[in-house]
Amino acid sequence: MPKPVHPTPTALAELWPVALTDVRFAPGSLLGDWQERNAARTLPHCVSRLEQAGNIDNLRRVTGEADGDYQNMWFADSDVYKTLEAAAWELGRRPDGAELRAFIDTTAALLAKAQGENGYLNSHITVVKPDKRWQELHWSHELYCAGHLIQAAVAAQRAGVGAELVTVARRFADLIVERFSTVDDLDGHPIIETALVELYRVTGHEPYLAMARRFLDLRGHGLLNGERFGSAYLQDHVPVREAESVAGHAVRQLYLLAGMVDVAVETHDEPLLDAADRLWDDAFGRKTYITGAQGSRHRDEAFGDPYELPADRAYGETCAAIASFQWNWRLLLATGGSWHADEMERALYNVIAGSTALDGTHFFYSNPLHLRTDHDGSHEDAPSTRLPWYSCACCPPNLARLVASLSGYAVTTSRHELQVHLYFAGSVETTVDGVPVRIAIDTDYPWDGRISLTVTTEAPLTLSLRIPEWCPAAEVRLDGEPIAGSDGYLRVRRDWSAGATVTLDLPMRPRTVQPHSRIDAVRGCVALARGPLVYCVEQTDLPSDITLEDVRIDPAVPVIEGRLPDIPVTLRVAGTAEPSLSNQLYPPEAPAKPRGKPLQLLAVPYFLWGNRDPGPMRVWIPVTTP
Amino acid sequence: MPKPVHPTPTALAELWPVALTDVRFAPGSLLGDWQERNAARTLPHCVSRLEQAGNIDNLRRVTGEADGDYQNMWFADSDVYKTLEAAAWELGRRPDGAELRAFIDTTAALLAKAQGENGYLNSHITVVKPDKRWQELHWSHELYCAGHLIQAAVAAQRAGVGAELVTVARRFADLIVERFSTVDDLDGHPIIETALVELYRVTGHEPYLAMARRFLDLRGHGLLNGERFGSAYLQDHVPVREAESVAGHAVRQLYLLAGMVDVAVETHDEPLLDAADRLWDDAFGRKTYITGAQGSRHRDEAFGDPYELPADRAYGETCAAIASFQWNWRLLLATGGSWHADEMERALYNVIAGSTALDGTHFFYSNPLHLRTDHDGSHEDAPSTRLPWYSCACCPPNLARLVASLSGYAVTTSRHELQVHLYFAGSVETTVDGVPVRIAIDTDYPWDGRISLTVTTEAPLTLSLRIPEWCPAAEVRLDGEPIAGSDGYLRVRRDWSAGATVTLDLPMRPRTVQPHSRIDAVRGCVALARGPLVYCVEQTDLPSDITLEDVRIDPAVPVIEGRLPDIPVTLRVAGTAEPSLSNQLYPPEAPAKPRGKPLQLLAVPYFLWGNRDPGPMRVWIPVTTP
Repeated sequence: MPKPVHPTPTALAELWPVALTDVRFAPGSLLGDWQERNAARTLPHCVSRLEQAGNIDNLRRVTGEADGDYQNMWFADSDVYKTLEAAAWELGRRPDGAELRAFIDTTAALLAKAQGENGYLNSHITVVKPDKRWQELHWSHELYCAGHLIQAAVAAQRAGVGAELVTVARRFADLIVERFSTVDDLDGHPIIETALVELYRVTGHEPYLAMARRFLDLRGHGLLNGERFGSAYLQDHVPVREAESVAGHAVRQLYLLAGMVDVAVETHDEPLLDAADRLWDDAFGRKTYITGAQGSRHRDEAFGDPYELPADRAYGETCAAIASFQWNWRLLLATGGSWHADEMERALYNVIAGSTALDGTHFFYSNPLHLRTDHDGSHEDAPSTRLPWYSCACCPPNLARLVASLSGYAVTTSRHELQVHLYFAGSVETTVDGVPVRIAIDTDYPWDGRISLTVTTEAPLTLSLRIPEWCPAAEVRLDGEPIAGSDGYLRVRRDWSAGATVTLDLPMRPRTVQPHSRIDAVRGCVALARGPLVYCVEQTDLPSDITLEDVRIDPAVPVIEGRLPDIPVTLRVAGTAEPSLSNQLYPPEAPAKPRGKPLQLLAVPYFLWGNRDPGPMRVWIPVTTP
Repeated sequence: MPKPVHPTPTALAELWPVALTDVRFAPGSLLGDWQERNAARTLPHCVSRLEQAGNIDNLRRVTGEADGDYQNMWFADSDVYKTLEAAAWELGRRPDGAELRAFIDTTAALLAKAQGENGYLNSHITVVKPDKRWQELHWSHELYCAGHLIQAAVAAQRAGVGAELVTVARRFADLIVERFSTVDDLDGHPIIETALVELYRVTGHEPYLAMARRFLDLRGHGLLNGERFGSAYLQDHVPVREAESVAGHAVRQLYLLAGMVDVAVETHDEPLLDAADRLWDDAFGRKTYITGAQGSRHRDEAFGDPYELPADRAYGETCAAIASFQWNWRLLLATGGSWHADEMERALYNVIAGSTALDGTHFFYSNPLHLRTDHDGSHEDAPSTRLPWYSCACCPPNLARLVASLSGYAVTTSRHELQVHLYFAGSVETTVDGVPVRIAIDTDYPWDGRISLTVTTEAPLTLSLRIPEWCPAAEVRLDGEPIAGSDGYLRVRRDWSAGATVTLDLPMRPRTVQPHSRIDAVRGCVALARGPLVYCVEQTDLPSDITLEDVRIDPAVPVIEGRLPDIPVTLRVAGTAEPSLSNQLYPPEAPAKPRGKPLQLLAVPYFLWGNRDPGPMRVWIPVTTP
């Protein structure tokens, strides 16, 4: 039963995951095509790049099968593990992938050979600084790499592949438990926490859970050396249960939060769950972009101060969005709060979807909401276009593993109830309370808000349909009769034995979004959105004599829908170009009101930006000068 | 004749500096008190911190007089040199400083002892990595430290102190010429260029000038390894004569530009001067804060894209403002363009003045224009208040050397003409064409715009008075009669032999400044300014139930002047508090227009912020919702 997160039966949970194989995305649908592209293009690209960039050779250097210097970041093993995890989920979804199976088996054999007698496995430490094993954990990423190894093994175990990978991971996990159960030390980069809980879930071996909890308890007591970024960078500035706000390196913070929820639900640790909830309020109430991106700062890849959300320097790391998605999923399971699914959807269709090019082999690491005219994109920290790989290659394989397992995040069940959180065309075949349920879903979501669900099951069942936060006027009809909804879900309870079709209507009127008044960076701007999709304006669609930064929009003017060959729904709106009449940055006299030049603006989904032309882009459009 | 920059008689120059001893700032005036505080507090603080932090001990480690590990940044010698330079200027200004003299002599003796037989001197390389001498110049700062040593020696020579320091610097300079005249290599951090030109100016030794020019010529050909920030970070991405825009690390770029002007004027290299001019247009037309601060990015301490000028994450390094001041001074001498003096004034009274606390012993390294509510100031990268010292301590001694020599930057001369660029209470006693000129200046500038200059000299003289860019209505009266001005200066030509008093009136009406429409970060905001001073609003002056970020201002309402015990001119204006009615970052429906709560706003000069309370502050205030 491959499930990317699978709480034990005694865990605190309102909702329970279904196997990713229980949900099928239809070919031709957005999610279906994305998952196919991931399998056909992204995952093979990752496998090939691992070889090309030398990640695999690093392991061969441990076994003596390769010469030369260690290559890439010191945590490059983790890219291998994430790709293995992606391959495992993909095989779980579709077991016929001989090449993927060979990749897993060959790599697992190499890992087994590279693994030390006591179970230790880390190519950077072993090749470059063998005397520093466990000595520089604040920065060495040894447990971070171990965490991704374990996650790959958990995926393999659940997908029924890669037995040797599971053996390798367990040996390493056992070493970690042996060593760290008595030593007060922990890794500067979380993920071992959630990985160990998941390993506990597949093995039932309680020391893994206890170890995960211990790592959480050790955090926030100044055991780590934050070096040039300080202890908050590593979330070591305050004990996890006492934290009041998300802080520091966004991916670290978000993986840590996922681990907090995992430990909390398995150990019934309510204060820990409360802490994760409290930080959720801070993250999504003050520190998240409209695209779902998180992390405002390039300097330390970190969350910023409250409402510090610059569009142009949005760091919005792809991995942070994936981590946010995974954290929200865990909170959704634990609490059943629809807002967690809302944020999963926001991140999925905007920042996560946008981070991969249509070709499936180019990626954004950072996901800005504004690419300036004359942007200097010469450095991979802030390129003007998606790149095929990065010197820190964490994002592409992270995308591969998420998308391969995406069907595991759409639907949940609880007693006598099935919840649909993410809408898609395709089918669900699962069981609720042991009774088979089949749902055929027909929709053109996210391009169209009409979703038709044909349910067949032999026992009474409540079908719960999430009302997206963006939709104030959701309506469900069953055999033509409307049904009322509440608290984020429309609930349809009935006997479905004869089969019945529920029609959910989520009207997708284009809307202009006004940001919270404290977000200085986008004051006086609106964003265009429709359904779950945020839109943006690209320079490529403007007349050549108009500069993107001079474009203005009148939010009172109606927005019209259109389409382009590869873009099912575009938005069109009347705007103006208002070039500055002064070339002074701070003219001593108030500048005259610019004469706006009328303009037809075309907006395309943010997630598709930069696929036609790498030019300037912006999500937030200033409103016309009154 | 101590002059911080002193072109040779054959240099390209429109204007010529006077000795810093020719200008006296009156006690009790802003500049006078600042210079006194610098002498009494800042400079001794730097001397004492160099000892305390271990910078001096690093040199003693070279001589065997100290044990233990090298301390501080690898370029910590430069902090010693900048403090020596400050001490030299201070002794030039007021030769009776026995303690400073002892500091210079003792330190020079230590340096002489630490210097290698061939002239090499760098404590980090010598103590930590002796085998890497000249091997890692892209990052080692060996020539950067040498540059600051040379600048200290030039100051000493011009001030007539520290003969041993001059000897040490010349020996090192000779070694540099010997080695680098034939090797294609250069330092990742400029300053050696301007230092060598200045050393040429005091010695007449042409190889120093040729070496400086060679270092400029070598730049931009990919000889340096930009490492994780790329080649633009080091300005090695394009030959200096071809650059179209300022780029990369701001201090590096600005020191390089100063060196470009120095080489250009001494070698009559017009294309090089044109390049510096072109980059000035880019820097001041697209990449400078209203405070004169430069460098938008924390990540690499760098200039951003055009118009990328976030208020909250303004890096605005103190050293960059000092470098900008020094670059503008060189361009002012070379071209006579008043806009260079405008930018000197802007930087001086805002970012530079603001970087030191009133106590003279606490400093900002980074100078933001907005400190957010709930700002995390736990790290020295973005503290909430000025700190006594930094792990990278470049700024405090840089301030000390600038302020000690400040009187050298106020006045220039040319044939039959004397120009006043910066206004101050005090006196000028200098010569023009060999004829003594004496000017007594009475003013309360920058608090008041009335400046009275009483001139006495025996030959006809044109007194040129800069019309600040912020002042559209400057007026000069001589014996009550108005005189017309043009191209940035009001020129008064007459026979002054009987003594005459010119009254310059620079009306200082409070004004609201609207930013260029492409500066997204402060769209919909205005700044308050008066004369050369930018103002800001501090949380400490708001009612306790009002959050700074909710404050709005109506730019149509008149601004009233007031005062506080330690602040001669405050500004008061009616505003409103407009708390958001929604706690959602991106509410799906347009939020209702907030009900503004009337509020009296107090604004204080930006340079004084954080002296009463370290709380939140902002320069740019959003305008009231229409």
